[in-house]
Amino acid sequence: MRRKKKQLQSVYKVDPWRIIETEFNPQTNFLSETVFSLGNGNVGIRGSFEEGYDGPAGTSMEGTYLNGFFEKVPIHYDETAYGYATHTETMLNLPNGKRIQLQLEDEVFSLFTGTIEKYQRELDLQQGILRRYTRWVSPKGKIVDIEVERMVSFAEEGLVLIRYAVTPINFNGTIQIISMLDGHVHNQTAENDPRIGTSLTGQTLKLEKLEQQDDISKLLQVTTFSKLQVLSCMQHLIEAGQCSDRINRVHGQMLEQRYLFSAKQGERISLTKSVLYLRSDRTPSERLWETADAIFETVNQQGWAHYHLMQRQVLDDFWMHCDVDIAGNQQLQQGLRFNLFHLFQSAGRDGISNIAAKGLTGEGYQGHYFWDSEIYIIPFFIFTQPWIARKLLEYRYSTLDQARRRAQTLFRRKGALYPWRTITGVECSSYYPAGTAQYHINADIVHAIRQYEMATGDWEFIRDYGAEIIFETARIWLYIGAFNNDHTERFCIYTVTGPDEYTALVNNNFYTNAMAKSHLNYAAALAEKMALDDSEAFERIRQKIELSTEEIRQWQAAANAMHLPKDEKKGIHPQDDSFLDKPVWPFDSTPETHYPLLLHYHPLDIYRHQVCKQADVVLALYLLHDQFSREEKKANLDYYEQVTTHDSSLSRCIFSIISAETGDLENAFSHFMETARLDLDNLQGNAHHGIHTASMAGTWLSLVSGFAGMRIGESGIRFSPQIPAALEGYSFRIKYRGNCIKIEVAEKEISMKLLEGDGLTLYYGNQPVHLFPDQPLHLPREEG
Amino acid sequence: MRRKKKQLQSVYKVDPWRIIETEFNPQTNFLSETVFSLGNGNVGIRGSFEEGYDGPAGTSMEGTYLNGFFEKVPIHYDETAYGYATHTETMLNLPNGKRIQLQLEDEVFSLFTGTIEKYQRELDLQQGILRRYTRWVSPKGKIVDIEVERMVSFAEEGLVLIRYAVTPINFNGTIQIISMLDGHVHNQTAENDPRIGTSLTGQTLKLEKLEQQDDISKLLQVTTFSKLQVLSCMQHLIEAGQCSDRINRVHGQMLEQRYLFSAKQGERISLTKSVLYLRSDRTPSERLWETADAIFETVNQQGWAHYHLMQRQVLDDFWMHCDVDIAGNQQLQQGLRFNLFHLFQSAGRDGISNIAAKGLTGEGYQGHYFWDSEIYIIPFFIFTQPWIARKLLEYRYSTLDQARRRAQTLFRRKGALYPWRTITGVECSSYYPAGTAQYHINADIVHAIRQYEMATGDWEFIRDYGAEIIFETARIWLYIGAFNNDHTERFCIYTVTGPDEYTALVNNNFYTNAMAKSHLNYAAALAEKMALDDSEAFERIRQKIELSTEEIRQWQAAANAMHLPKDEKKGIHPQDDSFLDKPVWPFDSTPETHYPLLLHYHPLDIYRHQVCKQADVVLALYLLHDQFSREEKKANLDYYEQVTTHDSSLSRCIFSIISAETGDLENAFSHFMETARLDLDNLQGNAHHGIHTASMAGTWLSLVSGFAGMRIGESGIRFSPQIPAALEGYSFRIKYRGNCIKIEVAEKEISMKLLEGDGLTLYYGNQPVHLFPDQPLHLPREEG
Repeated sequence: MRRKKKQLQSVYKVDPWRIIETEFNPQTNFLSETVFSLGNGNVGIRGSFEEGYDGPAGTSMEGTYLNGFFEKVPIHYDETAYGYATHTETMLNLPNGKRIQLQLEDEVFSLFTGTIEKYQRELDLQQGILRRYTRWVSPKGKIVDIEVERMVSFAEEGLVLIRYAVTPINFNGTIQIISMLDGHVHNQTAENDPRIGTSLTGQTLKLEKLEQQDDISKLLQVTTFSKLQVLSCMQHLIEAGQCSDRINRVHGQMLEQRYLFSAKQGERISLTKSVLYLRSDRTPSERLWETADAIFETVNQQGWAHYHLMQRQVLDDFWMHCDVDIAGNQQLQQGLRFNLFHLFQSAGRDGISNIAAKGLTGEGYQGHYFWDSEIYIIPFFIFTQPWIARKLLEYRYSTLDQARRRAQTLFRRKGALYPWRTITGVECSSYYPAGTAQYHINADIVHAIRQYEMATGDWEFIRDYGAEIIFETARIWLYIGAFNNDHTERFCIYTVTGPDEYTALVNNNFYTNAMAKSHLNYAAALAEKMALDDSEAFERIRQKIELSTEEIRQWQAAANAMHLPKDEKKGIHPQDDSFLDKPVWPFDSTPETHYPLLLHYHPLDIYRHQVCKQADVVLALYLLHDQFSREEKKANLDYYEQVTTHDSSLSRCIFSIISAETGDLENAFSHFMETARLDLDNLQGNAHHGIHTASMAGTWLSLVSGFAGMRIGESGIRFSPQIPAALEGYSFRIKYRGNCIKIEVAEKEISMKLLEGDGLTLYYGNQPVHLFPDQPLHLPREEG
Repeated sequence: MRRKKKQLQSVYKVDPWRIIETEFNPQTNFLSETVFSLGNGNVGIRGSFEEGYDGPAGTSMEGTYLNGFFEKVPIHYDETAYGYATHTETMLNLPNGKRIQLQLEDEVFSLFTGTIEKYQRELDLQQGILRRYTRWVSPKGKIVDIEVERMVSFAEEGLVLIRYAVTPINFNGTIQIISMLDGHVHNQTAENDPRIGTSLTGQTLKLEKLEQQDDISKLLQVTTFSKLQVLSCMQHLIEAGQCSDRINRVHGQMLEQRYLFSAKQGERISLTKSVLYLRSDRTPSERLWETADAIFETVNQQGWAHYHLMQRQVLDDFWMHCDVDIAGNQQLQQGLRFNLFHLFQSAGRDGISNIAAKGLTGEGYQGHYFWDSEIYIIPFFIFTQPWIARKLLEYRYSTLDQARRRAQTLFRRKGALYPWRTITGVECSSYYPAGTAQYHINADIVHAIRQYEMATGDWEFIRDYGAEIIFETARIWLYIGAFNNDHTERFCIYTVTGPDEYTALVNNNFYTNAMAKSHLNYAAALAEKMALDDSEAFERIRQKIELSTEEIRQWQAAANAMHLPKDEKKGIHPQDDSFLDKPVWPFDSTPETHYPLLLHYHPLDIYRHQVCKQADVVLALYLLHDQFSREEKKANLDYYEQVTTHDSSLSRCIFSIISAETGDLENAFSHFMETARLDLDNLQGNAHHGIHTASMAGTWLSLVSGFAGMRIGESGIRFSPQIPAALEGYSFRIKYRGNCIKIEVAEKEISMKLLEGDGLTLYYGNQPVHLFPDQPLHLPREEG
């Protein structure tokens, strides 16, 4: 279903390494807060102004988050049933530590009074710094230059640093810098948008203790239900200027430290504010206070410059392993780097947190982790920062017991069923037709584990974590599937929902069945392999989870008999048993304003039609790429393209990949362009509520798996690069089995260079290529 | 699925016309409150004691209801979607007017102190009176006889009368009768049972005005959201005894009138308390006060005896038209009469109320009206009290505009979709897979209208109300159904839920398709007939609803092409396209304590199996009886009997009917016995929360349509009576086209007698029989 393209009208200046805003505009402020968000996988803060915001309602949302720091909220059902998720977990909006008010004599600085003479804001993707420069003329005529730099430290996981500098241009007088830590916070709610939570209202953080001493303020709060503590602190260091007085104040849970400067015309005043967030689910409750003191002490000693340097080092390493270069399209170049940077900012690295649908930039989807991680985001990390991929997968292991309990509740049997959406591992989906019914989550997680193992060869991970997950999750397929009654000996899976959420509770969803088959095959093969190669580890797991040989035999039998429906006449795989029977959605009579359909039509109305929100069969074609011929892929792509709205941001990148693979580079590029700057240009229309992490990773997949045709399998890694007409060429980097390879695709040739590692064999198309250190290869390019 | 029979252990003494409780037992108190409920279709009060209840928690629930008097409560969804029901309506628990406290000198009467020497309570089904007699010895040794009579007047719709009499047996002294009107009321909630609402907590009735004057107290309250007013009043009349003083008091919304008597040993004290409930949705707000005064004035003039007489007259008429007589089984006799009596108590008669799933006896299902009315209950009234049937159908007409608005919301097109559950006509189902998806409600309502018209010949109703409903509701089938893509020209209906709620969101549910076909055929035929016979009325409707000839043609085309799936090998109709593919529920490994399944298994687990909560295909076999051969009926019955749990109380009666029709009288009788005393013996285990009105009507259907084989069609009415082995015979009465016929079925002969009317032709089996006034017929019985 090809809808009219949206016009790309970017708010930001095009630049290869920076996102630049050259004027302040309340109309785009909400979006900019998301775009200029900073994070380090633990802390995330939205790009709102230090000085607060006095603009129109609905054009701003303050936000400070800790990955996985949540409140537990009971889910209310008007009509409830057995096994429903009982509670949801909501990532909390935490105390705002970035607040700084500026006062010139008796005038308070605001972007909405006086005159803004100069303004620039930029996010530096190489340095991990957000900078803002403003020249402001107050209503009474005082002129100041305000320079602010901000970072969320990649070196110290709880730390936010702000350097706030003011220079009076045409006056002497008292300048006050009023720094605040505002503990009066609550989450947003939206009753009419299913993508935003509705359950948590009002302030849930209760004051436990607060303290102000010298230049430091500390605020200890605890959540009402989940009983997690967060210690928010701020410390101030005057770097330039004459401080004449300091006044500390407390208003409820708002802590204020006011610095008075005797300012002189042309002389810069500068103060560094360190904000620290510590949490009782990482640091033991009784050690929060002293840990904060120790970190602040270090910050005092090391200063801004040290953390700035560390920031640069971490990002140098990051870009070294993942940078992409797009020849001939600076917009795309900027969009892709922006996406990768935000992925890096969003991913949890501690093995007990993950990556939320909106990263740490907003409250949409309540900060929950979805299959987005395994199918869209982890692949990016597997091939660029495998250590992060491993941490994200370890997270799933850390919640395996929750998944076991869920299986016990639902089936009263052994095994593990992962939740559709969660923070701590408990099912938080209150709408089971597009939640619990998406059993494919089990196969998705296993798919990512397998990809990780193939790309890294990290057997230790499989042995210590992966195998247990793979076996426990495999069990579920035998509970929800059954050999058909019609004596055809097919193994069928009834009443499930596949990835496409515009179709629910169907039988033999193709994606689910195909992924389950792959999962069961892998589980059975792994059991066999482990029993031979690592029998001690296998025996340990076997005993722990009471795994019988008969079970493994059943897995193999079910995989062998798995029903994978095919419509021979159309030459395609029906999305499910009844999908092709249903009438096609009346696209012609659906006004453009009625998309996304989910906001304008009842689920039943959507479900009873052939209409897809996102890639479903097409996703299977990609993930299980070696099981389908090019002709099959083309036929399916062509069919599903006609009935897919791409209302989900997880859709276009997959269609782009299969379009590229089947030779329709124009369509591939079109989808790619719609996602590459999805959040930067707010193409989905809701980026102000936070970034779309899966789509961001999807653009990387579109490039690397799409245009460059990267695929991995047991036999190795393969590339089949193509260049869409609109581009001159591109390059990217890949980490594979200890090697880091830079691949440049140009019109006439493809170059490969080893940046790290001892060398490897890879496939260029079907041709094996040996790559050695310091011996770049230049191969003539064979198109298509 | 034949589960072990529950033992019939009745709490109540068997009696043909009374329900008798011979001892007070807290363990059965909760049930007795339901059993001894009184109502008149407008007011309903539970059978709790005047003196209150001090027993263990969870053994009592006070309840006073007005049919359709509701609070509007927003439905909260953790994840919402377009077109979801936004509010539910909850029938409110209203001020308790029956409260009377008895005090003997300084001792307060309680069933939990002192000694109960004698106790009897009985519900008189002929007189419509609840009587209680207690001889109590107080802790200090005072002996009293307490006699209480209670009625909810069939003559005055807001009126409850209580005659409270006390006789001191062994003492002289002060006896106080403290009469109360307690406005502190709220509904029950139960978070863990989907059959009970959860949304309304706390007191929702706000005080508007109260007044105490002489022997009268008045309390005017208003609901918080629906803004309905209820005026609750009490008036007292001393009939015997020396009243020495009267003290009136108010505590918040509790009004108290205390009567002090100088009592003499052996001399009876008697007081009649009239309680009146008036409502602003029936009596204009500004006339509530004066209306109450006028009614109390009449009560004063007429006294208890008058209302007692009226009660008797109304019930004489009721029983004259519907009494059944079971030879040889007093238990059944009692159960059936109990059921019919409660149906009469529950049915709204004003054309703007209906009959709730639990009548006016409890808060289960929030006092909502369901399809139960049209498919189970209205048939009983059609054939016994057609004027009530008409009022119940007029109710649907009164909510037609709501149904139109619902269709507009869901389809953005003309037509009407009735709600699955409602009070005022708006959809109140928050779980659409077993709510909105049950589109068959439209066909159910039309089926009842057609039955009504066939049985009464009331063309005026069709012309003024019915036709408009029939046409508007027919439109929906063209929106949710479509001609199949596979060129077989079948008309298919996708993503619906049939009557069986253990299967949801399926394609081509047999019941839905068959009933839709019947609906469309009827609508098209009616349009044709009206255009010829009553063209003026037809033209009026046609213009009002903008009905085109093309639409009528489409109805006929869809009906002609309606897909009615059949499995030729099994010789049965699959419940839906995929029903027979699914594995059969593992009945053998399901413990008895895990029924009903809905309380013990996740919906997905239930939906993915072949398991039925209730009659679905089998119900179609009954309703559309002339479209199936006896062999087809038998094959389907046998199949579905194996996979049906009868977890719904709507199930067994239908299985009983088809069992009888297909010759399995033993099975028919077994189901019949499980439903005939369902509430009286609490066989479903939840009768304490209220009666099951549909099941009560179902037992009548089992007898009349089942054993007696009554069917009607365009050609007339037919009987094919059989007698199950456990019975000697039975009789019943039927109203048909102005005639009231008594039919007695005995071993050797069947007797028919006209009690009212000019005579008619009916069919005994296939044999036409002419029945004339005063000429009873005696025909030899041909078995089976």
